[in-house]
Amino acid sequence: MKYGPIQQAMQATGADACLLSSNVNIYYLTGQVFAGFVYLPAEGDAIWFVQRPAGITAPQAVYIRKPEDIPGLLLSGGLPLPNHLLLEADQITHNEFLRLEAVFHPRQTGNATPLLRQARMLKTPEEIAQMRLSARRHAAVYQQIPSLFREGMTDLDLQYEIENRMRQKGSIGVFRTFGSNMDIFMGSVLTGDNAATPSPFDFALGGGGPNPFLPIGANGTPVRQGQTVMVDMAGNFTAYLTDMTRVYAYGALPDYAYEAHQLSIDMNKRFLLEGKPGVACSEIYNWSVEKVEAAGFKKNFMGITQQAKFVGHGLGLEINEPPVLMQRSKEVLQAGMTIAYEPKFVFPGVGAVGIENTYLVTETGVEKLTVFTEDIIPL
Amino acid sequence: MKYGPIQQAMQATGADACLLSSNVNIYYLTGQVFAGFVYLPAEGDAIWFVQRPAGITAPQAVYIRKPEDIPGLLLSGGLPLPNHLLLEADQITHNEFLRLEAVFHPRQTGNATPLLRQARMLKTPEEIAQMRLSARRHAAVYQQIPSLFREGMTDLDLQYEIENRMRQKGSIGVFRTFGSNMDIFMGSVLTGDNAATPSPFDFALGGGGPNPFLPIGANGTPVRQGQTVMVDMAGNFTAYLTDMTRVYAYGALPDYAYEAHQLSIDMNKRFLLEGKPGVACSEIYNWSVEKVEAAGFKKNFMGITQQAKFVGHGLGLEINEPPVLMQRSKEVLQAGMTIAYEPKFVFPGVGAVGIENTYLVTETGVEKLTVFTEDIIPL
Repeated sequence: MKYGPIQQAMQATGADACLLSSNVNIYYLTGQVFAGFVYLPAEGDAIWFVQRPAGITAPQAVYIRKPEDIPGLLLSGGLPLPNHLLLEADQITHNEFLRLEAVFHPRQTGNATPLLRQARMLKTPEEIAQMRLSARRHAAVYQQIPSLFREGMTDLDLQYEIENRMRQKGSIGVFRTFGSNMDIFMGSVLTGDNAATPSPFDFALGGGGPNPFLPIGANGTPVRQGQTVMVDMAGNFTAYLTDMTRVYAYGALPDYAYEAHQLSIDMNKRFLLEGKPGVACSEIYNWSVEKVEAAGFKKNFMGITQQAKFVGHGLGLEINEPPVLMQRSKEVLQAGMTIAYEPKFVFPGVGAVGIENTYLVTETGVEKLTVFTEDIIPL
Repeated sequence: MKYGPIQQAMQATGADACLLSSNVNIYYLTGQVFAGFVYLPAEGDAIWFVQRPAGITAPQAVYIRKPEDIPGLLLSGGLPLPNHLLLEADQITHNEFLRLEAVFHPRQTGNATPLLRQARMLKTPEEIAQMRLSARRHAAVYQQIPSLFREGMTDLDLQYEIENRMRQKGSIGVFRTFGSNMDIFMGSVLTGDNAATPSPFDFALGGGGPNPFLPIGANGTPVRQGQTVMVDMAGNFTAYLTDMTRVYAYGALPDYAYEAHQLSIDMNKRFLLEGKPGVACSEIYNWSVEKVEAAGFKKNFMGITQQAKFVGHGLGLEINEPPVLMQRSKEVLQAGMTIAYEPKFVFPGVGAVGIENTYLVTETGVEKLTVFTEDIIPL
């Protein structure tokens, strides 16, 4: 039951209820998106206060015109108003927060966002089943990429064809991210020196993007002989995302590019072998950086002019969920976490190499969800 | 100069500065997106406080690590700290707002969002030029739609092909909306009775969508003989959007569908003829509803089970900008506004009909930007 961990966290902090209105949290708790609110008390069942669409017939659903209707409905249902209310302070706007606070004027208002993100971090069997389905479709699209490539294509030309095949395999299109420092459209295809272009956003790599209004990813660079194409498109084939990066090469690459790519494969193997509940996320980050330093690739690791400070991240309904595999993480791996591990390298004149897989932390170890050839694939 | 109207509004309310961090407002004022802040004082030049990406060399750019660095930089530059500061209270999260408020602890904090939305409502010649370019590409894609259709296709199959042609014509992909009650992927293709399905979002029409996580638009309904396909895809071929709806038909439709479609064309003609600075948005809404009532189509207007309460809206960097053509609007048309007018009708067993065009309000009237055949187009 998804309420359980959230209600336990509420009880532990003395909170009486959460009022949730973000699409992602409403979907998480109800299996659908509506305009309105999920009211989850610290004990007992949730109530869905729905504004739109018309026609939701679930027994938990109560139609409202505006959030100001909720307190009266709670009271008339014999329920107390919350003294300590949690709102999504990291997701809703300041004015939305103030409005909801004024509706309930609780004695204390807290932040529901971390509770929900912590709960969502540990996936249920049903969520994992969706991720397995996304992973299979993700691999089926990547399998087609060599057949989509034509000499003279730019990164964008190739991306358009990949996007089309993603949609045909059931991609829902939207690629959900958490926070204001993320923006992207369906994923990233990076070739040549565009792989080194820094972006404003908090992804592993950047790219100049198609327009100053979307400065991330492919930017119209032609795919050239002796260079790579790193494909890191969204696995958004269900509500639950998989994250998988593979590298394609047009012609032969310098030896160091193959070496660095093999290092990424080896690091993924180590993650798969050594990952298990209890392993610290910071430890994974630290051994990753040590491996890279020992191999002499530190200046190419996770970018050049701007280097990401993480080597992996949780994911699910959003691409950037906890935990983050970074030096200052306090998290340890737990069964039910799903984590993308993505050691990547960028080389001037060549492009990016390295792989990314999505893993499930099990009771005893780690299972790879994104099963697909890991070597550099010729175009 | 884009600062002018915002600075005048600040001066009129006694505000000393705006601190802006949303992608859309940063792009509006700087022509690019970066992670960081634009600090716009009530008089004088803006300062760009940039966190990422590395490499911005504009003279206004000052690199910071975190917003807490800004006050010291202002003071060391001989600038006063703001006593009355405006933050984007309708765009940034509650916690982002609190953090920025704590950084400056101004005597008074206000909302920058309405000022920016009012300023952005009146387009400059450069912005209008981008919209003209979007409109041309928008029409070029819609022109191809009959050649993309194959018997047996679903709405999603057709949408995937339209999306691919949009990308090939330079669509940047992302389709920007304002507010938390909007979610969509590249636009909407509605056929048959899916056109009547209500959605949680504040668009003119709904549709069940491809997944409960994205309940809007095409849902896999086969395109059937005697039904329509309403195409309302984003005109996101530049940073500035155009909005255009056209109707395609597979086989012959009932007479009333053609009649209602012609009514929408006639209403668009009236908007074009009578629209000019000074005309009230509420007046346009009112005569639109009167026309529809007189023709006997009120129960089909803007949906069936859930009917939108507007007939048009401003647009630009986002699809839902002021003004809104609705009964309770207090706005009047002004030169430089760009407005989508979209009287639409839904018929059970048939689908949606009606057109939408994007118009520019000029000094003397209204100019149509989305020039493309308006009749129902056979598939």
